[in-house]
Parts: sequence; structure tokens; C-alpha cells
Amino acid sequence: MRLCTYSVEPGAPRLGAECGEAVLDLARYSHLHDGLRLPADMLGLIDAGPDAWRHATQLCARFAAELPTHDLAQDAEAGLAYPADHVQRHAPIVRPRKDVIGLGQNYSAHAKELNNPVPPAPIYFTKPPTAVIGPDEPIPYPQGLTRRFDWEVELGVIIGLGGRNIEQARALDHVFGYTVFNDVSARDLQFRTSQWFKGKSLDGTCPMGPVIVTADEIVDPQALRLTLTVNGTRKQDGHTRDMVFSVAQIIADLSAGMTLEAGDAISTGTPEGVGDGRTPPEYLKPGDLVEAEVERIGVLRNPVR
Amino acid sequence: MRLCTYSVEPGAPRLGAECGEAVLDLARYSHLHDGLRLPADMLGLIDAGPDAWRHATQLCARFAAELPTHDLAQDAEAGLAYPADHVQRHAPIVRPRKDVIGLGQNYSAHAKELNNPVPPAPIYFTKPPTAVIGPDEPIPYPQGLTRRFDWEVELGVIIGLGGRNIEQARALDHVFGYTVFNDVSARDLQFRTSQWFKGKSLDGTCPMGPVIVTADEIVDPQALRLTLTVNGTRKQDGHTRDMVFSVAQIIADLSAGMTLEAGDAISTGTPEGVGDGRTPPEYLKPGDLVEAEVERIGVLRNPVR
Repeated sequence: MRLCTYSVEPGAPRLGAECGEAVLDLARYSHLHDGLRLPADMLGLIDAGPDAWRHATQLCARFAAELPTHDLAQDAEAGLAYPADHVQRHAPIVRPRKDVIGLGQNYSAHAKELNNPVPPAPIYFTKPPTAVIGPDEPIPYPQGLTRRFDWEVELGVIIGLGGRNIEQARALDHVFGYTVFNDVSARDLQFRTSQWFKGKSLDGTCPMGPVIVTADEIVDPQALRLTLTVNGTRKQDGHTRDMVFSVAQIIADLSAGMTLEAGDAISTGTPEGVGDGRTPPEYLKPGDLVEAEVERIGVLRNPVR
Repeated sequence: MRLCTYSVEPGAPRLGAECGEAVLDLARYSHLHDGLRLPADMLGLIDAGPDAWRHATQLCARFAAELPTHDLAQDAEAGLAYPADHVQRHAPIVRPRKDVIGLGQNYSAHAKELNNPVPPAPIYFTKPPTAVIGPDEPIPYPQGLTRRFDWEVELGVIIGLGGRNIEQARALDHVFGYTVFNDVSARDLQFRTSQWFKGKSLDGTCPMGPVIVTADEIVDPQALRLTLTVNGTRKQDGHTRDMVFSVAQIIADLSAGMTLEAGDAISTGTPEGVGDGRTPPEYLKPGDLVEAEVERIGVLRNPVR
């Protein structure tokens, strides 16, 4: 499934599934068709576990099969489904229940461009829930706070089944799905002390989306190209096979002594091509358009304002 | 007020206020006395804002005045109030809505004992909600993960009124109250890479409590002694006047470009005397009892298991 969080004026954000040109409201469709109501928000579905995920997958397939005979305008009237371009998108998880965990220097060429050695262990930092924004939402330019405002396209991992001391061999069984993060970073604030949090935490610097693709559709998260453009010019073009620590290794390492929970979000690091590593350096400015893309997931597009 | 989160078997954790030897259930007492029901949990009260806080303060004063004529056994029967030693304590905020923000090297003597310069700006890192435990709860010893398991007594700040770009001069107006944190740290994991998260994130390594003392009772957070003992032997003995960055400076700096929210928790750094800085180094081991105390707040006691 390609799951999103959508809204239609004046309603609140709800869980949706992309089916071709339509966005299906899973909770309403499930209620109509089998009386069993799926949760109406993304975290609710993730918490509901594998049976609910399978049920949602079946409903999506059923709706897709019916779609040619559907009148989408009528569906929209009933709140069941909408033409994709009639809904507003939000971050797939509008408000994570803890900080998003990010990785630093997890692609060796990126570590090199910032003059760092390849790390001996995964490097973790966090971004607060207040930083999360959705597709097409503007990234607020932090005027007066930074002069080195930078981009970072990353593969995002959403945990589905929590756990502690998860074995690497079974780690991918704990993944609910994958998304795209843009780990927007204020480099001067990031490097003003040894710890990066301040430069990673500014409001709106964690664009996420446009969808979460469930793990059944991405069997190998190490086989995805990821690219980023600024105003249409390609700046990053990497591949998840070049990660220093794979998704499975990250989950195993992170969960050693620390319980991972359903809904946890991990941003797995960025490949080379960030602005700070260029000669001369390049940074984001108000008016720019950043497009971060991961193969098979989609394009996460955000203007800087 | 001295606010806590308490439970009585088999009930769920609820908001309480310490009144002498009693723990008052604020939600039930408010409902009985004025039909206006205060929230039954700490985050609910914090979210409810200054009018609710004042109301709660008045109710506490009223209960305290009535207390000599009360039959606490009868109160307990009604769920209104309990003898303090009949309730179980939990972390005052059982589950924060984002990571707890910690500060590193915020006392110059502590920076020195770890061979670090006094930092030019506050150093932030985070601890996940899964690390938070309450008073008397055991800190699980992370067998096989660390050999350098260390203590850190810290003054905790709980944000009451959120904000962004908060001025230092008005920063303390945003504080709901103060608590004690023990920022338990696995030094080997903390220093295995440049970023400290892994060594700060293990389950149960963020003891919090025993209470939140509301800000009206602690006018100057820079006038508090803080101490820590292990098995009765004093290891840390510091004073918040020696912070490199004051609580007001931290709030101003942290909120620059990042929205602080009601319920956010900040642990403001530890004074000298941690185990890693001793000659020879000393570390926590299973069976130890750690007592972290901040003047006017209380003792946060946790066994290591």
C-alpha cells in the first residue's frame, strides 16, 4: 500500500491509501464494506498490527478492482474516496510520539565530503516532532539564525512492531513501511558545539512524505536510488546500497537496550551532495524549491519561505 | 504545589498533589467541591493553563486547611486523598510527548572533570520517552552493553506555556515547574561516536521525580543545591548558581527557531562528581541505590537492578 494522511476542507487529517488516481479513505470504506472499522489515522493503523495491515491491503485491492466502475465524484460526496488532486497532503505521521531519530555520515562519500572518517558505529541524533511538516508545506527560512541552511534527502523507516534487542536477521520484520525525509540542517547551529541537536531541530526542518509505502512492497530497502534537486537542478544522486549501516543493522543496533515502538521513525542518513560539502558551498534561501525523491516511494516537494 | 503522579492498585496513574502527609486527587476533589473537574493527569493539567493551575493551588490550600478534621481512611475509600505512604509513585509525566532535552557540560567544573572546555553555547542532546521511569523504579542494568554506567543529578524544567523565540527576560514565565532528573549515561556508548544519543537512550535511564514543584514556589531556579549519593556515599554536591547557561538562557536559546510546547521537559545538566570523572573511575552496578536530590524538590531514589 501507498498510505498517506490527507484532508479535505474543513475536515481533520485522516488516513488514506493511494489507489491509482484516487485516495481511498480506509476507515470509512472498511466500515461500509464489512462493519469492521479500520483506524482513521496512520498511528492508529500502525498500532493495530499485522492483521489490520493485511485487511487494509485487501480493501485497497478490492477498491482498485472496483475503481473503473466507480463514480469518484459520488465517492467524494460520501467521503469514501477522492480524486488525488482534490485532497491536501500532510506528513504521513502528522505528529510522531517521540523525536525522529536521524543518522549522521551513513554514506561513506557523504562522510568524506564533510571531512569525516567513515563512522565505526551508527551516529544518532534526533529531530523533535515540532520539526515535522508534510509535502508541499513551506520550510520556514530561519532568518537571523543561520547562514548555512542545507538539504539532505534520506530514506525513512517506520517501525511497525516494536521490540528490544532485535536481531539483525529479523530486523526488517519490524518495519511497517518506508518514506522520504528531508533532514534540513542549519550547519552553523549544528556545528556550534559537539552535539548537533540545535541545528537539526528548527521548526519545519523535517519534511516527511509524500506517502509511507508498506514493507511488503519494498522487500529490499538497500536497493533504492535517492535524489534531490533544488530549483530543478540535481544536487544529490545516491543509492541505499552505499549505506555504511544497513536498515537492518540500524534497527538491531538502535534497539540494543532501547525499546523501539510502533510508529517510531528513523531517517537513515544522506548520500553525498549536500550544500555544505560543495565548492563553493551552496545553501537554501527563501524562494527555493527542494524536491527529495526515493525510488518507489515518491517525490517530497517543499518550498523554502 | 508539589504535584505527583500516583496510583493505587488496581487503578491507573493519576494526578496528585502532596499536602502534608496526604496525596490529594485533584480531579476528584475539584469535581466534588465545585463541579469543575480538573484534568486527571499531569499533562492534562499543564495543557489546561494558568487558570487551572491557580484553581488547583486554591484547592490544595483548601484541602490542607481542612486536613486536621479529615478522616484520611474515609477519603481514601472515596478516592479523594490517601496517606502518602499508601500510594505508588510514577514519573510525574509518565510519558512525555517528545524526547526529554538534556544539556551537556553545563557546569564548568563538570566540563573540566571530563577534560572539556566550558562550552560557547548550550550543548543539547535528547533522551527518548522510553527511558523515563519514576521514583523507586529500578534502573535496568544494561548487561553486556556497557561497562561505564554513570549517574548525573540534574534540575529538570517543565515548560508550561509554549513559545518560540522566547526572550530571556521573560523565559521563566514559561516554566510550569521543576523536577529532578537522573541522566543515567552509558559512557562507552555515549562516546563511541561524536553524538551521545546511544549512550543516553537506554531503557530506564531517565529517572524523573519524585514531584514537580510549581514555578510559583521556586522563584529562582539558580538558587538550588543538588546532590547525589550512591549507596549512601555522596558523589555529587553542586549548586545551580554554577550553571554555565541559566534556565532562562537555555529556554531563550532553545526556543530560537524551535517551538517549545507545554509539557516539554529539559534536564539542565549535571555538576561535577560523575563516576567517569573520578580517579579511579567508578560506575554503577546491579544492587546499587542512587539518590538524586535537588533542594526544595526532593529525593529521587532508584535501585539499579
